[in-house]
Amino acid sequence: LGMEPVPVPARWDAAAVVLTGASRGFGLSLARLLAPRLGEGSVLLLLARSAEALSELAAELRAAGTGLRVECVTADLACERGLRRALHCPSSLGSLGDVSKSFLDLTDPNEINSYFAFNVTSALCLTSTALRAFGKRPGSSRTVVNISSLCAVKPFKNWALYCSGKASRDMMFQVLALEEPDVRVLNYAPGPLDTDMQLLARTKTGDPEMRQYFQSLQESGQLIDCAVSAQKLVNLLEEDTFRSGAHVDFYDI
Amino acid sequence: LGMEPVPVPARWDAAAVVLTGASRGFGLSLARLLAPRLGEGSVLLLLARSAEALSELAAELRAAGTGLRVECVTADLACERGLRRALHCPSSLGSLGDVSKSFLDLTDPNEINSYFAFNVTSALCLTSTALRAFGKRPGSSRTVVNISSLCAVKPFKNWALYCSGKASRDMMFQVLALEEPDVRVLNYAPGPLDTDMQLLARTKTGDPEMRQYFQSLQESGQLIDCAVSAQKLVNLLEEDTFRSGAHVDFYDI
Repeated sequence: LGMEPVPVPARWDAAAVVLTGASRGFGLSLARLLAPRLGEGSVLLLLARSAEALSELAAELRAAGTGLRVECVTADLACERGLRRALHCPSSLGSLGDVSKSFLDLTDPNEINSYFAFNVTSALCLTSTALRAFGKRPGSSRTVVNISSLCAVKPFKNWALYCSGKASRDMMFQVLALEEPDVRVLNYAPGPLDTDMQLLARTKTGDPEMRQYFQSLQESGQLIDCAVSAQKLVNLLEEDTFRSGAHVDFYDI
Repeated sequence: LGMEPVPVPARWDAAAVVLTGASRGFGLSLARLLAPRLGEGSVLLLLARSAEALSELAAELRAAGTGLRVECVTADLACERGLRRALHCPSSLGSLGDVSKSFLDLTDPNEINSYFAFNVTSALCLTSTALRAFGKRPGSSRTVVNISSLCAVKPFKNWALYCSGKASRDMMFQVLALEEPDVRVLNYAPGPLDTDMQLLARTKTGDPEMRQYFQSLQESGQLIDCAVSAQKLVNLLEEDTFRSGAHVDFYDI
Protein backbone atom coordinates (compact mmCIF):
# COMPACT_ATOMS: atom_id res chain seq x y z
CA LEU A 1 0.00 0.00 0.00
CA GLY A 2 2.06 2.87 -1.31
CA MET A 3 5.26 1.08 -0.41
CA GLU A 4 7.75 0.51 -3.20
CA PRO A 5 9.01 -3.04 -3.11
CA VAL A 6 12.77 -3.29 -2.73
CA PRO A 7 13.90 -4.35 -6.20
CA VAL A 8 15.35 -7.84 -6.18
CA PRO A 9 18.00 -8.19 -8.85
CA ALA A 10 17.48 -10.86 -11.46
CA ARG A 11 19.58 -13.88 -10.53
CA TRP A 12 22.26 -15.23 -12.79
CA ASP A 13 22.91 -18.86 -13.51
CA ALA A 14 25.11 -20.78 -11.10
CA ALA A 15 28.56 -19.23 -11.14
CA ALA A 16 31.93 -19.55 -9.49
CA VAL A 17 33.24 -16.06 -8.74
CA VAL A 18 36.73 -15.31 -7.52
CA LEU A 19 37.04 -11.78 -6.21
CA THR A 20 40.34 -10.33 -5.05
CA GLY A 21 40.74 -7.24 -2.91
CA ALA A 22 37.32 -8.05 -1.49
CA SER A 23 37.90 -6.67 2.01
CA ARG A 24 37.39 -3.02 1.18
CA GLY A 25 36.88 -0.29 -1.39
CA PHE A 26 35.72 -1.32 -4.83
CA GLY A 27 36.13 -5.06 -4.21
CA LEU A 28 33.88 -4.87 -1.15
CA SER A 29 31.18 -2.95 -3.03
CA LEU A 30 31.36 -5.40 -5.88
CA ALA A 31 31.02 -8.38 -3.51
CA ARG A 32 27.85 -6.89 -2.04
CA LEU A 33 26.35 -6.29 -5.49
CA LEU A 34 27.32 -9.66 -6.90
CA ALA A 35 26.24 -11.86 -4.00
CA PRO A 36 22.44 -11.44 -4.38
CA ARG A 37 22.72 -11.99 -8.14
CA LEU A 38 24.48 -15.34 -7.98
CA GLY A 39 22.08 -18.18 -8.75
CA GLU A 40 21.54 -21.40 -6.85
CA GLY A 41 24.66 -23.53 -6.54
CA SER A 42 27.02 -20.57 -6.91
CA VAL A 43 30.26 -20.13 -5.02
CA LEU A 44 31.82 -16.78 -4.17
CA LEU A 45 35.48 -16.95 -3.25
CA LEU A 46 36.76 -13.83 -1.53
CA LEU A 47 40.45 -13.02 -1.40
CA ALA A 48 42.27 -10.32 0.55
CA ARG A 49 45.09 -9.80 3.03
CA SER A 50 42.86 -8.98 5.98
CA ALA A 51 41.34 -12.13 7.53
CA GLU A 52 39.06 -10.21 9.88
CA ALA A 53 37.49 -7.97 7.25
CA LEU A 54 37.00 -10.96 4.96
CA SER A 55 35.22 -13.10 7.52
CA GLU A 56 32.96 -10.19 8.51
CA LEU A 57 31.99 -9.74 4.87
CA ALA A 58 31.44 -13.48 4.41
CA ALA A 59 29.16 -13.57 7.47
CA GLU A 60 27.17 -10.61 6.12
CA LEU A 61 26.73 -12.21 2.71
CA ARG A 62 25.79 -15.59 4.14
CA ALA A 63 23.23 -13.94 6.44
CA ALA A 64 21.29 -12.76 3.38
CA GLY A 65 19.97 -16.31 3.29
CA THR A 66 20.23 -16.88 -0.45
CA GLY A 67 22.10 -20.11 0.17
CA LEU A 68 25.20 -18.71 -1.52
CA ARG A 69 28.37 -20.54 -0.61
CA VAL A 70 30.95 -17.95 0.45
CA GLU A 71 34.56 -18.94 0.98
CA CYS A 72 37.46 -16.79 2.16
CA VAL A 73 41.14 -17.03 1.34
CA THR A 74 43.49 -14.80 3.26
CA ALA A 75 46.65 -14.34 1.25
CA ASP A 76 49.35 -11.80 0.67
CA LEU A 77 49.59 -11.89 -3.09
CA ALA A 78 52.94 -10.15 -3.03
CA CYS A 79 54.71 -13.30 -1.90
CA GLU A 80 54.93 -16.57 -3.71
CA ARG A 81 53.51 -18.55 -0.82
CA GLY A 82 50.52 -16.25 -0.63
CA LEU A 83 50.01 -16.55 -4.34
CA ARG A 84 50.19 -20.32 -4.27
CA ARG A 85 47.72 -20.31 -1.41
CA ALA A 86 45.33 -18.09 -3.28
CA LEU A 87 45.57 -20.01 -6.54
CA HIS A 88 42.64 -18.09 -7.95
CA CYS A 89 41.70 -15.29 -10.24
CA PRO A 90 41.76 -11.54 -9.74
CA SER A 91 39.40 -8.74 -10.07
CA SER A 92 40.11 -5.72 -7.93
CA LEU A 93 43.63 -5.71 -6.61
CA GLY A 94 46.25 -3.08 -6.44
CA SER A 95 48.35 -0.65 -4.52
CA LEU A 96 49.29 2.85 -5.41
CA GLY A 97 53.03 2.72 -4.84
CA ASP A 98 54.89 5.49 -3.05
CA VAL A 99 53.48 8.54 -4.83
CA SER A 100 55.58 10.92 -2.79
CA LYS A 101 58.41 9.80 -5.08
CA SER A 102 59.20 11.01 -8.54
CA PHE A 103 60.62 8.82 -11.31
CA LEU A 104 64.11 9.98 -10.26
CA ASP A 105 63.51 8.70 -6.73
CA LEU A 106 62.74 5.20 -7.97
CA THR A 107 66.27 3.81 -7.72
CA ASP A 108 65.71 0.82 -5.45
CA PRO A 109 65.12 -2.34 -7.51
CA ASN A 110 63.63 -4.18 -4.51
CA GLU A 111 60.89 -1.60 -4.13
CA ILE A 112 60.04 -1.75 -7.83
CA ASN A 113 60.21 -5.54 -8.02
CA SER A 114 57.85 -5.81 -5.04
CA TYR A 115 55.46 -3.41 -6.68
CA PHE A 116 55.30 -5.45 -9.88
CA ALA A 117 55.08 -8.73 -7.95
CA PHE A 118 52.01 -7.58 -6.05
CA ASN A 119 50.29 -5.63 -8.81
CA VAL A 120 51.18 -7.41 -12.03
CA THR A 121 52.62 -10.89 -11.46
CA SER A 122 49.88 -11.82 -9.01
CA ALA A 123 47.17 -10.73 -11.45
CA LEU A 124 48.70 -12.83 -14.20
CA CYS A 125 49.31 -15.97 -12.08
CA LEU A 126 45.95 -15.86 -10.39
CA THR A 127 44.16 -15.48 -13.70
CA SER A 128 46.07 -18.20 -15.52
CA THR A 129 45.70 -20.60 -12.59
CA ALA A 130 42.01 -19.88 -12.14
CA LEU A 131 41.30 -20.32 -15.85
CA ARG A 132 43.05 -23.68 -15.69
CA ALA A 133 41.03 -24.65 -12.60
CA PHE A 134 37.78 -23.53 -14.24
CA GLY A 135 38.41 -25.02 -17.68
CA LYS A 136 36.28 -24.64 -20.79
CA ARG A 137 32.99 -26.48 -20.32
CA PRO A 138 30.03 -26.79 -22.68
CA GLY A 139 27.20 -24.50 -21.66
CA SER A 140 29.26 -22.40 -19.30
CA SER A 141 31.02 -19.13 -20.00
CA ARG A 142 34.05 -17.56 -18.37
CA THR A 143 34.67 -13.87 -17.76
CA VAL A 144 37.75 -12.17 -16.36
CA VAL A 145 37.60 -8.58 -15.16
CA ASN A 146 40.80 -6.65 -14.65
CA ILE A 147 40.27 -3.57 -12.53
CA SER A 148 42.10 -1.04 -14.64
CA SER A 149 42.41 2.73 -14.42
CA LEU A 150 42.68 5.86 -16.52
CA CYS A 151 46.34 5.52 -15.51
CA ALA A 152 46.65 2.48 -17.78
CA VAL A 153 46.29 4.76 -20.79
CA LYS A 154 47.38 8.18 -19.52
CA PRO A 155 50.55 9.13 -17.64
CA PHE A 156 50.39 11.12 -14.39
CA LYS A 157 53.25 12.81 -12.56
CA ASN A 158 54.57 10.88 -9.54
CA TRP A 159 52.57 7.81 -10.53
CA ALA A 160 55.22 5.99 -12.57
CA LEU A 161 54.70 2.67 -10.79
CA TYR A 162 50.92 2.81 -10.70
CA CYS A 163 50.63 3.90 -14.36
CA SER A 164 53.13 1.38 -15.66
CA GLY A 165 51.64 -1.44 -13.59
CA LYS A 166 48.16 -0.66 -14.89
CA ALA A 167 49.41 -0.32 -18.50
CA SER A 168 51.14 -3.64 -18.13
CA ARG A 169 48.01 -5.38 -16.82
CA ASP A 170 45.75 -3.95 -19.51
CA MET A 171 48.15 -5.26 -22.12
CA MET A 172 48.42 -8.77 -20.69
CA PHE A 173 44.65 -9.06 -20.50
CA GLN A 174 44.45 -7.93 -24.13
CA VAL A 175 46.81 -10.79 -24.99
CA LEU A 176 44.57 -13.18 -23.04
CA ALA A 177 41.55 -11.96 -25.02
CA LEU A 178 43.37 -12.73 -28.28
CA GLU A 179 44.59 -16.14 -27.12
CA GLU A 180 41.34 -17.35 -25.58
CA PRO A 181 38.39 -16.28 -27.74
CA ASP A 182 35.94 -18.16 -25.51
CA VAL A 183 36.98 -16.20 -22.40
CA ARG A 184 35.33 -12.79 -22.04
CA VAL A 185 37.95 -10.28 -20.90
CA LEU A 186 37.20 -6.78 -19.63
CA ASN A 187 39.61 -4.05 -18.52
CA TYR A 188 37.29 -1.88 -16.44
CA ALA A 189 38.50 1.55 -15.26
CA PRO A 190 36.19 2.36 -12.34
CA GLY A 191 36.82 6.12 -12.26
CA PRO A 192 38.21 8.13 -9.32
CA LEU A 193 36.72 6.18 -6.40
CA ASP A 194 36.13 7.60 -2.95
CA THR A 195 38.56 5.19 -1.29
CA ASP A 196 41.74 5.18 0.78
CA MET A 197 43.68 5.25 -2.48
CA GLN A 198 42.30 8.70 -3.34
CA LEU A 199 43.06 9.81 0.21
CA LEU A 200 46.69 8.83 -0.39
CA ALA A 201 46.60 10.51 -3.80
CA ARG A 202 45.46 13.89 -2.49
CA THR A 203 47.68 13.89 0.59
CA LYS A 204 50.87 12.10 -0.46
CA THR A 205 51.39 12.78 -4.18
CA GLY A 206 54.75 14.55 -4.47
CA ASP A 207 53.79 16.99 -7.20
CA PRO A 208 51.81 19.91 -5.70
CA GLU A 209 49.70 20.48 -8.83
CA MET A 210 48.66 16.84 -8.89
CA ARG A 211 47.88 16.89 -5.18
CA GLN A 212 45.76 19.99 -5.75
CA TYR A 213 43.96 18.24 -8.60
CA PHE A 214 43.06 15.26 -6.40
CA GLN A 215 41.96 17.60 -3.61
CA SER A 216 39.69 19.44 -6.05
CA LEU A 217 38.15 16.13 -7.17
CA GLN A 218 37.10 15.52 -3.60
CA GLU A 219 36.04 19.09 -2.78
CA SER A 220 33.85 19.37 -5.86
CA GLY A 221 32.18 16.04 -5.14
CA GLN A 222 33.60 14.32 -8.21
CA LEU A 223 34.83 11.23 -6.40
CA ILE A 224 32.66 8.25 -7.26
CA ASP A 225 31.02 6.03 -4.68
CA CYS A 226 32.36 2.49 -5.03
CA ALA A 227 28.82 1.08 -5.14
CA VAL A 228 27.92 3.34 -8.09
CA SER A 229 30.93 2.25 -10.09
CA ALA A 230 30.53 -1.42 -9.11
CA GLN A 231 26.91 -1.20 -10.31
CA LYS A 232 28.11 0.02 -13.72
CA LEU A 233 30.45 -2.95 -13.88
CA VAL A 234 27.64 -5.34 -13.00
CA ASN A 235 25.53 -3.77 -15.76
CA LEU A 236 28.39 -4.27 -18.23
CA LEU A 237 28.63 -7.91 -17.22
CA GLU A 238 24.87 -8.44 -17.50
CA GLU A 239 24.66 -6.76 -20.92
CA ASP A 240 27.75 -8.72 -21.96
CA THR A 241 28.23 -6.77 -25.18
CA PHE A 242 31.75 -5.37 -24.58
CA ARG A 243 34.47 -6.36 -27.01
CA SER A 244 36.70 -8.91 -25.28
CA GLY A 245 39.94 -7.23 -24.21
CA ALA A 246 38.43 -3.72 -24.33
CA HIS A 247 39.37 -0.97 -21.90
CA VAL A 248 36.04 0.48 -20.70
CA ASP A 249 36.03 3.53 -18.47
CA PHE A 250 33.31 4.48 -15.96
CA TYR A 251 32.84 7.74 -17.89
CA ASP A 252 32.46 5.94 -21.25
CA ILE A 253 29.16 4.35 -20.27
CA LEU B 1 88.99 11.97 -59.40
CA GLY B 2 85.62 10.29 -59.75
CA MET B 3 85.89 8.87 -56.23
CA GLU B 4 83.11 9.70 -53.82
CA PRO B 5 84.51 10.68 -50.45
CA VAL B 6 83.27 8.50 -47.61
CA PRO B 7 80.81 10.77 -45.79
CA VAL B 8 82.02 11.67 -42.35
CA PRO B 9 79.06 12.27 -40.04
CA ALA B 10 78.80 15.69 -38.43
CA ARG B 11 80.10 15.46 -34.89
CA TRP B 12 77.94 16.29 -31.93
CA ASP B 13 79.02 18.27 -28.91
CA ALA B 14 80.75 16.42 -26.10
CA ALA B 15 78.34 13.88 -24.69
CA ALA B 16 78.16 11.14 -22.11
CA VAL B 17 76.29 8.20 -23.61
CA VAL B 18 75.18 5.15 -21.67
CA LEU B 19 74.16 2.31 -23.95
CA THR B 20 72.73 -0.94 -22.62
CA GLY B 21 72.49 -4.18 -24.56
CA ALA B 22 75.51 -2.96 -26.52
CA SER B 23 77.05 -6.38 -27.21
CA ARG B 24 74.77 -7.37 -30.07
CA GLY B 25 71.75 -6.66 -32.22
CA PHE B 26 70.32 -3.20 -32.19
CA GLY B 27 72.52 -1.96 -29.34
CA LEU B 28 75.65 -2.99 -31.22
CA SER B 29 74.54 -1.24 -34.42
CA LEU B 30 73.66 1.86 -32.45
CA ALA B 31 77.08 1.91 -30.74
CA ARG B 32 78.82 1.80 -34.13
CA LEU B 33 76.69 4.65 -35.47
CA LEU B 34 76.98 6.81 -32.38
CA ALA B 35 80.73 6.48 -31.76
CA PRO B 36 81.95 8.51 -34.77
CA ARG B 37 79.39 11.24 -34.03
CA LEU B 38 80.46 11.87 -30.45
CA GLY B 39 82.47 15.09 -30.19
CA GLU B 40 85.75 15.66 -28.41
CA GLY B 41 85.67 14.88 -24.72
CA SER B 42 82.79 12.43 -25.05
CA VAL B 43 82.45 9.21 -23.09
CA LEU B 44 80.60 6.14 -24.32
CA LEU B 45 79.69 3.68 -21.59
CA LEU B 46 78.74 0.25 -22.93
CA LEU B 47 76.72 -2.20 -20.83
CA ALA B 48 75.90 -5.83 -21.48
CA ARG B 49 76.11 -9.26 -19.90
CA SER B 50 78.84 -10.55 -22.21
CA ALA B 51 82.29 -9.24 -21.19
CA GLU B 52 84.04 -10.62 -24.26
CA ALA B 53 81.70 -9.13 -26.84
CA LEU B 54 81.81 -5.79 -25.02
CA SER B 55 85.58 -5.55 -24.92
CA GLU B 56 85.84 -6.49 -28.61
CA LEU B 57 83.41 -3.71 -29.45
CA ALA B 58 85.26 -1.23 -27.24
CA ALA B 59 88.56 -2.10 -28.95
CA GLU B 60 86.96 -1.62 -32.38
CA LEU B 61 85.52 1.77 -31.44
CA ARG B 62 88.75 2.97 -29.84
CA ALA B 63 90.70 1.88 -32.92
CA ALA B 64 88.77 4.41 -35.00
CA GLY B 65 91.16 6.94 -33.49
CA THR B 66 88.63 9.66 -32.76
CA GLY B 67 89.91 9.88 -29.19
CA LEU B 68 86.55 8.73 -27.86
CA ARG B 69 86.69 7.37 -24.34
CA VAL B 70 84.95 4.00 -24.33
CA GLU B 71 84.20 2.23 -21.05
CA CYS B 72 82.60 -1.17 -20.51
CA VAL B 73 80.45 -2.42 -17.67
CA THR B 74 79.61 -6.10 -17.62
CA ALA B 75 76.49 -6.60 -15.58
CA ASP B 76 73.52 -8.88 -15.38
CA LEU B 77 70.73 -6.37 -14.96
CA ALA B 78 68.31 -9.04 -13.78
CA CYS B 79 69.96 -9.18 -10.38
CA GLU B 80 70.25 -6.41 -7.87
CA ARG B 81 74.03 -6.67 -7.64
CA GLY B 82 74.31 -6.38 -11.40
CA LEU B 83 72.02 -3.42 -11.39
CA ARG B 84 73.96 -1.68 -8.64
CA ARG B 85 77.13 -2.35 -10.58
CA ALA B 86 75.73 -0.92 -13.75
CA LEU B 87 74.20 2.14 -12.10
CA HIS B 88 73.51 3.70 -15.43
CA CYS B 89 70.85 4.40 -17.98
CA PRO B 90 69.22 2.17 -20.59
CA SER B 91 68.71 2.20 -24.23
CA SER B 92 68.38 -1.17 -25.89
CA LEU B 93 67.68 -3.91 -23.42
CA GLY B 94 65.22 -6.69 -23.34
CA SER B 95 64.38 -10.33 -23.59
CA LEU B 96 61.48 -11.96 -25.31
CA GLY B 97 60.27 -14.25 -22.54
CA ASP B 98 59.25 -17.84 -23.20
CA VAL B 99 57.02 -17.39 -26.24
CA SER B 100 56.27 -21.09 -26.46
CA LYS B 101 53.92 -20.42 -23.55
CA SER B 102 50.43 -19.03 -23.66
CA PHE B 103 48.92 -16.76 -21.00
CA LEU B 104 47.48 -19.88 -19.35
CA ASP B 105 50.97 -21.38 -19.05
CA LEU B 106 52.26 -18.37 -17.11
CA THR B 107 51.54 -19.69 -13.63
CA ASP B 108 55.01 -19.47 -12.06
CA PRO B 109 55.43 -16.16 -10.21
CA ASN B 110 59.23 -16.54 -10.14
CA GLU B 111 59.42 -16.66 -13.90
CA ILE B 112 57.22 -13.59 -14.26
CA ASN B 113 58.98 -11.64 -11.51
CA SER B 114 62.34 -12.34 -13.15
CA TYR B 115 61.01 -11.16 -16.46
CA PHE B 116 59.85 -7.85 -15.03
CA ALA B 117 63.04 -7.43 -12.99
CA PHE B 118 65.21 -7.72 -16.10
CA ASN B 119 63.00 -5.88 -18.56
CA VAL B 120 61.20 -3.23 -16.55
CA THR B 121 62.76 -2.62 -13.13
CA SER B 122 66.26 -2.43 -14.57
CA ALA B 123 65.18 0.13 -17.17
CA LEU B 124 63.60 2.29 -14.50
CA CYS B 125 66.47 2.07 -11.98
CA LEU B 126 69.17 2.58 -14.55
CA THR B 127 67.41 5.63 -15.95
CA SER B 128 66.64 7.24 -12.61
CA THR B 129 70.17 6.60 -11.35
CA ALA B 130 71.80 7.87 -14.52
CA LEU B 131 69.68 11.01 -14.57
CA ARG B 132 70.76 11.67 -10.98
CA ALA B 133 74.41 11.09 -11.91
CA PHE B 134 74.12 13.36 -14.94
CA GLY B 135 72.12 16.14 -13.30
CA LYS B 136 70.66 19.21 -14.96
CA ARG B 137 73.45 21.53 -16.08
CA PRO B 138 73.25 24.87 -17.90
CA GLY B 139 74.10 24.50 -21.58
CA SER B 140 73.76 20.74 -21.65
CA SER B 141 70.77 18.67 -22.61
CA ARG B 142 69.73 15.18 -21.59
CA THR B 143 67.98 12.58 -23.72
CA VAL B 144 66.70 9.16 -22.74
CA VAL B 145 65.76 6.62 -25.38
CA ASN B 146 63.66 3.62 -24.43
CA ILE B 147 63.84 0.89 -27.05
CA SER B 148 60.17 0.13 -27.39
CA SER B 149 58.21 -2.07 -29.78
CA LEU B 150 54.95 -2.30 -31.65
CA CYS B 151 54.17 -4.74 -28.82
CA ALA B 152 53.97 -1.82 -26.40
CA VAL B 153 50.78 -0.69 -28.12
CA LYS B 154 49.40 -3.84 -29.75
CA PRO B 155 48.82 -7.28 -28.19
CA PHE B 156 50.18 -10.43 -29.83
CA LYS B 157 49.33 -14.03 -29.03
CA ASN B 158 51.91 -15.85 -26.86
CA TRP B 159 53.69 -12.59 -26.14
CA ALA B 160 51.97 -11.65 -22.88
CA LEU B 161 55.22 -10.95 -21.04
CA TYR B 162 56.93 -9.10 -23.87
CA CYS B 163 53.87 -6.98 -24.67
CA SER B 164 53.11 -6.11 -21.06
CA GLY B 165 56.76 -5.37 -20.28
CA LYS B 166 56.99 -3.03 -23.27
CA ALA B 167 53.65 -1.36 -22.45
CA SER B 168 54.85 -0.86 -18.91
CA ARG B 169 58.13 0.73 -20.02
CA ASP B 170 56.48 3.06 -22.53
CA MET B 171 54.19 4.26 -19.77
CA MET B 172 56.92 4.89 -17.21
CA PHE B 173 58.94 6.88 -19.74
CA GLN B 174 55.82 8.92 -20.50
CA VAL B 175 55.61 9.72 -16.79
CA LEU B 176 59.28 10.72 -16.84
CA ALA B 177 58.60 13.06 -19.78
CA LEU B 178 55.83 14.75 -17.78
CA GLU B 179 57.87 15.02 -14.60
CA GLU B 180 61.09 16.26 -16.17
CA PRO B 181 60.32 18.75 -18.94
CA ASP B 182 64.04 19.43 -19.51
CA VAL B 183 64.79 15.76 -20.26
CA ARG B 184 64.02 14.66 -23.81
CA VAL B 185 62.34 11.24 -23.70
CA LEU B 186 61.77 9.02 -26.71
CA ASN B 187 60.06 5.63 -26.92
CA TYR B 188 61.49 4.31 -30.18
CA ALA B 189 60.00 1.15 -31.73
CA PRO B 190 62.75 -0.07 -34.08
CA GLY B 191 60.57 -2.33 -36.24
CA PRO B 192 61.02 -6.09 -36.75
CA LEU B 193 64.80 -6.37 -36.61
CA ASP B 194 66.83 -9.15 -38.17
CA THR B 195 68.16 -10.37 -34.81
CA ASP B 196 68.21 -13.46 -32.62
CA MET B 197 64.93 -12.26 -31.12
CA GLN B 198 63.14 -12.66 -34.46
CA LEU B 199 64.76 -16.06 -34.84
CA LEU B 200 63.18 -17.06 -31.53
CA ALA B 201 59.89 -15.50 -32.60
CA ARG B 202 59.60 -17.49 -35.83
CA THR B 203 60.79 -20.79 -34.36
CA LYS B 204 59.50 -20.84 -30.79
CA THR B 205 56.24 -18.87 -30.71
CA GLY B 206 53.58 -21.31 -29.50
CA ASP B 207 50.78 -20.12 -31.77
CA PRO B 208 51.24 -21.61 -35.29
CA GLU B 209 49.67 -18.61 -37.05
CA MET B 210 51.99 -16.21 -35.28
CA ARG B 211 55.00 -18.39 -36.04
CA GLN B 212 53.94 -18.43 -39.69
CA TYR B 213 53.62 -14.64 -39.66
CA PHE B 214 57.17 -14.22 -38.33
CA GLN B 215 58.46 -16.74 -40.88
CA SER B 216 56.78 -14.79 -43.66
CA LEU B 217 58.41 -11.56 -42.45
CA GLN B 218 61.78 -13.17 -42.94
CA GLU B 219 60.99 -14.96 -46.21
CA SER B 220 59.63 -11.83 -47.85
CA GLY B 221 62.65 -9.78 -46.76
CA GLN B 222 60.69 -7.54 -44.41
CA LEU B 223 63.05 -7.89 -41.45
CA ILE B 224 64.96 -4.69 -40.92
CA ASP B 225 68.73 -4.50 -40.67
CA CYS B 226 69.71 -3.18 -37.25
CA ALA B 227 71.98 -0.57 -38.81
CA VAL B 228 69.10 0.82 -40.90
CA SER B 229 66.84 1.18 -37.90
CA ALA B 230 69.64 2.54 -35.69
CA GLN B 231 70.31 5.15 -38.38
CA LYS B 232 66.68 6.27 -38.23
CA LEU B 233 67.02 6.64 -34.47
CA VAL B 234 70.20 8.69 -34.88
CA ASN B 235 68.33 10.91 -37.37
CA LEU B 236 65.51 11.38 -34.86
CA LEU B 237 68.03 12.37 -32.21
CA GLU B 238 69.82 14.80 -34.56
CA GLU B 239 66.57 16.43 -35.72
CA ASP B 240 65.43 16.51 -32.10
CA THR B 241 61.87 17.53 -32.95
CA PHE B 242 59.98 14.58 -31.41
CA ARG B 243 57.47 15.32 -28.65
CA SER B 244 59.03 14.25 -25.36
CA GLY B 245 57.45 10.98 -24.24
CA ALA B 246 56.24 10.10 -27.75
CA HIS B 247 56.13 6.55 -29.08
CA VAL B 248 57.76 6.73 -32.53
CA ASP B 249 57.79 3.66 -34.75
CA PHE B 250 60.36 2.89 -37.47
CA TYR B 251 57.49 2.82 -39.98
CA ASP B 252 56.16 6.23 -38.88
CA ILE B 253 59.21 8.06 -40.19
